[in-house]
Amino acid sequence: MPHPPLVEPRATLVPAAEVARRLAGLQAGLSARGLDAAVVMQNADLYYFSGTVQRAFLYVPTAGEATLFVRRLAERARLETPLEGIVELGSPRDLPSLVAQRYGALPHRVGLELDVLPVNEYRRLETLFPEALFEDIGGDIVRQRAVKSAWEVERIRAAAAIAIEVCELIPGILREGLTEAEFAGLVEAQARRLGHEGIIRMRGFNQEMFYGQLLTGISGTAASYLDTPLAGTGLSPAVAQGVSFKPIRRGDHVVFDFVPVREGYIADFTRIFALGELPGELRRAYEAALRIEAAVVAAARPGVTCGALYDLALASADDEGLAAAFMGYGAGQVRFIGHGVGLELDELPVLTNSDLQLVEGMVFALEPKFVVPGLGAIGVENTWLVTATGLALITQSPEHIRQLD
Amino acid sequence: MPHPPLVEPRATLVPAAEVARRLAGLQAGLSARGLDAAVVMQNADLYYFSGTVQRAFLYVPTAGEATLFVRRLAERARLETPLEGIVELGSPRDLPSLVAQRYGALPHRVGLELDVLPVNEYRRLETLFPEALFEDIGGDIVRQRAVKSAWEVERIRAAAAIAIEVCELIPGILREGLTEAEFAGLVEAQARRLGHEGIIRMRGFNQEMFYGQLLTGISGTAASYLDTPLAGTGLSPAVAQGVSFKPIRRGDHVVFDFVPVREGYIADFTRIFALGELPGELRRAYEAALRIEAAVVAAARPGVTCGALYDLALASADDEGLAAAFMGYGAGQVRFIGHGVGLELDELPVLTNSDLQLVEGMVFALEPKFVVPGLGAIGVENTWLVTATGLALITQSPEHIRQLD
Repeated sequence: MPHPPLVEPRATLVPAAEVARRLAGLQAGLSARGLDAAVVMQNADLYYFSGTVQRAFLYVPTAGEATLFVRRLAERARLETPLEGIVELGSPRDLPSLVAQRYGALPHRVGLELDVLPVNEYRRLETLFPEALFEDIGGDIVRQRAVKSAWEVERIRAAAAIAIEVCELIPGILREGLTEAEFAGLVEAQARRLGHEGIIRMRGFNQEMFYGQLLTGISGTAASYLDTPLAGTGLSPAVAQGVSFKPIRRGDHVVFDFVPVREGYIADFTRIFALGELPGELRRAYEAALRIEAAVVAAARPGVTCGALYDLALASADDEGLAAAFMGYGAGQVRFIGHGVGLELDELPVLTNSDLQLVEGMVFALEPKFVVPGLGAIGVENTWLVTATGLALITQSPEHIRQLD
Repeated sequence: MPHPPLVEPRATLVPAAEVARRLAGLQAGLSARGLDAAVVMQNADLYYFSGTVQRAFLYVPTAGEATLFVRRLAERARLETPLEGIVELGSPRDLPSLVAQRYGALPHRVGLELDVLPVNEYRRLETLFPEALFEDIGGDIVRQRAVKSAWEVERIRAAAAIAIEVCELIPGILREGLTEAEFAGLVEAQARRLGHEGIIRMRGFNQEMFYGQLLTGISGTAASYLDTPLAGTGLSPAVAQGVSFKPIRRGDHVVFDFVPVREGYIADFTRIFALGELPGELRRAYEAALRIEAAVVAAARPGVTCGALYDLALASADDEGLAAAFMGYGAGQVRFIGHGVGLELDELPVLTNSDLQLVEGMVFALEPKFVVPGLGAIGVENTWLVTATGLALITQSPEHIRQLD
């Protein structure tokens, strides 16, 4: 009988050296804070530190080997993770005794992802480890994950390649009369064929995303609860973002704001297609977006703060006479010009009023965009790698507006 | 200048009477527990109790009018919610003073969704309301939401209609040589055209879903971290569920396990397509699944416990000689045969070893399925409404295996 196909043959496993380096980084942080151990539980963090997503507790002592205590599925974990310590866990109730057995003692001070862990999950851990004090290490993990390895950058490049290839296919897909929803489906089908994994992980409470935002014409002016400059009407108030049933008409333009995901890694990418004549006001705003992008890219390098880049972009938008429309309009305006990407869409660095400094290996999306009420949204977005000397472009694709007639 | 298109013109708004009835139900629960108020924050619950999803706190006093304190976007909230109390909130820090101003006093005992609220969000509320005691009302909300109104059942029917229509289109889409991913993209494009909203909300920590599971042949035997009988290989260990790059071959069968979403509401539906000859073992398992479904449906009515139905299904699978393959195989086996659906995919009632009784108005998916190692998965899934006398079928579509040649 063939073995169940638990791992897609074309998939890349996270190399042992990657996992070892990441765990060492986490352990250094635990040690510096005087913690005895971390218990990692959230999917993206589990994948980062173990190379596998299981229903599991990843127990990381400050020194020594980590153990993945797996409720479901240990056999799949063994095929995917380079970790040697895989222990089957019948019930979370067994966790303390298994930890004590394996490590000789229970931990006193334990780091948890309190930024994402629901209160009831946390309380269960309090009950399981009544002697332990818990501290939040969510921020430490987020900061660690912000700096990517070369291996991770390759994964982000593979994600970016999907967005770039799909973008090239749009002239063959877009036509007058399609609804936004219909158009989105055809575009998304191409992304799926190329390996888009569908699920876009976000860390922020209540944040949700589906392939990005494919918005046409005036739809781009609809803002939402999301912390994004563009959101769209959506198909109903229940979702309240993304495409609508609006038919695409001559004179509309398409904002192709697309979030590709490959092997868990995310990129972010925006280009513009014009179906007929683009209003001059939007065309001028697009040119301003390109100039703002160029100014930020020229200034960015390790050691520069996010706040300095944000201020530069705001000043540039002001110089262009477009401050009121920059990154949204009115109450829809957001207070950032870019965000880190990796295993989640909302990573560090956030290019906002912050003194966080850029570090070599960070990867972020820079997205100067404008929302012009009554006309639509427009802008550009690329994913960039921070190198020793500046930024390197990951989403290599021409930036001109694609004119379709 | 046209108003920004903040609400999709074809979208249905939640009627005022629905919201009023739901809030009255919540308030009755608060009163019974001696709580002064609830603060609702999670997207699905916000939509349920207010008709809109905003970055907001919905403050519900035990008696009197609820208020939606909106950080982003009040103008959109006003267009979508029947609630009259919409208050703009510049910062969460302003919440206590605005509550005191509006209600004359601060609450002492407050219900929160502690099953989904991250610890750090909870701690912020503790800081904002230092005199308050907080209690978990997540379970109360989940139990309330399990019983659907006629209006909600109509929404679930609209979701089901998407799955049923897409299912009819599959003979025109499925062909040998497509990869599972390519096939999924084409199927999903049809769902999008019909109004599938993409985002599938789940309440459980770390639970994720993308359109369901379109699995072919042996892919159906891959289980995962997910609490589902079928999961699939996925495109990488980072996601570890769903389609793979496996090409579809003659002799494969397709498990079309599809989760449609329309206006926030979810249904769940599984049918089988055979591309060539289906192995006799799978065909017999499918017939057994239909008999188990029929037995459970015949027994289900208000007052019957989930546990009784679960036991009945287990006994039937045992009678069929297929207990080892029922609802998964080996460590991949799950301990339920169905689950509630609504604004989230993982609602009550869960048809598991539980003394929860069926109540008129509950809606659940019943999914007897088998996983046969080396061959694949097979089974049927329908979404059912609990009526006064038994179950009514929501996903009306023939159950025979669709033979494609």
